[in-house]
Amino acid sequence: MGESAQRVNIHPTAQVHPSAILGDGTSIWACANIMANVTTGKNCSIGFGSEIGRGTVIGDDVRIGFGVFIPSNTRIGNSVFIGPSVTMTDDKYPRVNNPKYEAQPPTIESGAAIGAGSVLLPGVTIGSHALVGAGSIVTRDVPSGSVVAGNPARIFTMEDL
Amino acid sequence: MGESAQRVNIHPTAQVHPSAILGDGTSIWACANIMANVTTGKNCSIGFGSEIGRGTVIGDDVRIGFGVFIPSNTRIGNSVFIGPSVTMTDDKYPRVNNPKYEAQPPTIESGAAIGAGSVLLPGVTIGSHALVGAGSIVTRDVPSGSVVAGNPARIFTMEDL
Amino acid sequence: MGESAQRVNIHPTAQVHPSAILGDGTSIWACANIMANVTTGKNCSIGFGSEIGRGTVIGDDVRIGFGVFIPSNTRIGNSVFIGPSVTMTDDKYPRVNNPKYEAQPPTIESGAAIGAGSVLLPGVTIGSHALVGAGSIVTRDVPSGSVVAGNPARIFTMEDL
Repeated sequence: MGESAQRVNIHPTAQVHPSAILGDGTSIWACANIMANVTTGKNCSIGFGSEIGRGTVIGDDVRIGFGVFIPSNTRIGNSVFIGPSVTMTDDKYPRVNNPKYEAQPPTIESGAAIGAGSVLLPGVTIGSHALVGAGSIVTRDVPSGSVVAGNPARIFTMEDL
Repeated sequence: MGESAQRVNIHPTAQVHPSAILGDGTSIWACANIMANVTTGKNCSIGFGSEIGRGTVIGDDVRIGFGVFIPSNTRIGNSVFIGPSVTMTDDKYPRVNNPKYEAQPPTIESGAAIGAGSVLLPGVTIGSHALVGAGSIVTRDVPSGSVVAGNPARIFTMEDL
Repeated sequence: MGESAQRVNIHPTAQVHPSAILGDGTSIWACANIMANVTTGKNCSIGFGSEIGRGTVIGDDVRIGFGVFIPSNTRIGNSVFIGPSVTMTDDKYPRVNNPKYEAQPPTIESGAAIGAGSVLLPGVTIGSHALVGAGSIVTRDVPSGSVVAGNPARIFTMEDL
C-alpha cells in the first residue's frame, strides 16, 4: 500500500522470451534480445541491440549498453555498468563442433564497471567495484577494486598515472 | 529550378525520431536508430544497426558503417568516415548512478577517418583529416592530419613504416 | 529416399535478399542481414544482428556469432568459427569518396577460428585451422595452423605459454 510497482518497459522491437523474469522498473530497449530463463532485478536497463543469453542472472540497478553480447548462464551482481559494444565469451576452444567444448561464462561482481568495446575471455571473474577500461581484452580474473586496461588487460598502479 | 532535391532513404526497419533532421540524399539503413534532435547534412549514410545519440550534429557526406555507437551531443564535421563497429563514449567515470557523471562526447573534425572496431574515450577530439587505424583505443586527442593506431593509440611516424 | 532435406530456418526479423542461396540446415537468427548473392553451404548458423555483404561465399558448417560484420565478396571455407562482434574490413584507405578505393575483402580458410571482438584488416588471409585469439587486430596474413593474438596480432610460440 502506498507504493505501486514500477512498470517494466519493453520496446516493441525487442524480443523477450516468455520465460524471462524482469524486475520492476526495468527497461529493454529497441532490438534487444532477452533469451529463455534470463532474470533481472529491479531498475535495470538493457540497451539497443544487446543479446542476453539463456539463464543469465542479473542483479538490481544494472546498466547494459548498446550492442552488448552476454553468453548463457552469466552471473552479474548489483549496480554493474556494462558499456556499449562489450563482448563476453564462454568458449575457451572456439572451434566448430569442438568435442572439448564446455561453457565457461564470466562472472561480474556487484559494483563493477566494464568500459566500452571490452572483450572478456571465458570464465573470467570481474571482482566487485573493479573498473575495466574501455577497449580492454580481459584474459584473467580482475581483483576487486582494481583498475585494468590494455590488450591483454593488466592492472594499473600509481606508476601508470 | 533544374535541380531537384534528392530524397532521404529510410529503411522500413530503421527508427528515426520525428525531431531528427536529415539532409537531402541521406540514407538510413536497416535497424539503425536515430534519436531525438539529431541533424545530418547532405548525402550521409548511416549503417545497419547503428545508434546515433540525441542532439548529435553530423555534417555533409559523412559515412557511418555497421553497428556504430555515437553518444548524445557528439559533433561530426563534413566528409567523415566512421568504419563498422566503432564505439564512442561520453562517460569518464562509468559507474551506475555516478554522482560525478558529466557527459563528455567526442568531436570528429572534417575529413577524419576512424577505422573499424575503434573505441574513442570520452571527450577526445579527432583532428581534421586524421586517420585512426582499425582497432585503435583512442585515449587522447588526435592531431589534425596524423595517423594513430594501437591500444592505447599512439601517433605513427616514418620510423614505424 | 530415407534422408530428407533439412530445412533452412530464417527468423522472421532477419532480412535475406531473394538472390541469396542458403544450404540445407542453415539457420539465420534474429535481425541478421544477408545481402544479395550471398551463398552458404549446409548447416551454417548466422547470429543475431550480423551483416553478410553482397556476394560473400560461405562453406559448410560455418558458425558466425552475434553482431559480426563481413564485407562484400569475402571468401569463407568450411567449418569456420567466427565469434561474436568480429569485424572484417575491405577498404585499405578508408576515406569518404576515396579515388584509390579498391575493395580487398579477407579470406578465411577452412577450419579457422576467429575469437570474439577481433578486427581483420583489408585483404588478410586467415590460414586453415589457424586460431585468432579474442580481441586481436589482424594486420597481416595468419599462417595455417598458427595461433595469433594482440594488437597488432602476432604469432604465439611456445615461449609465450
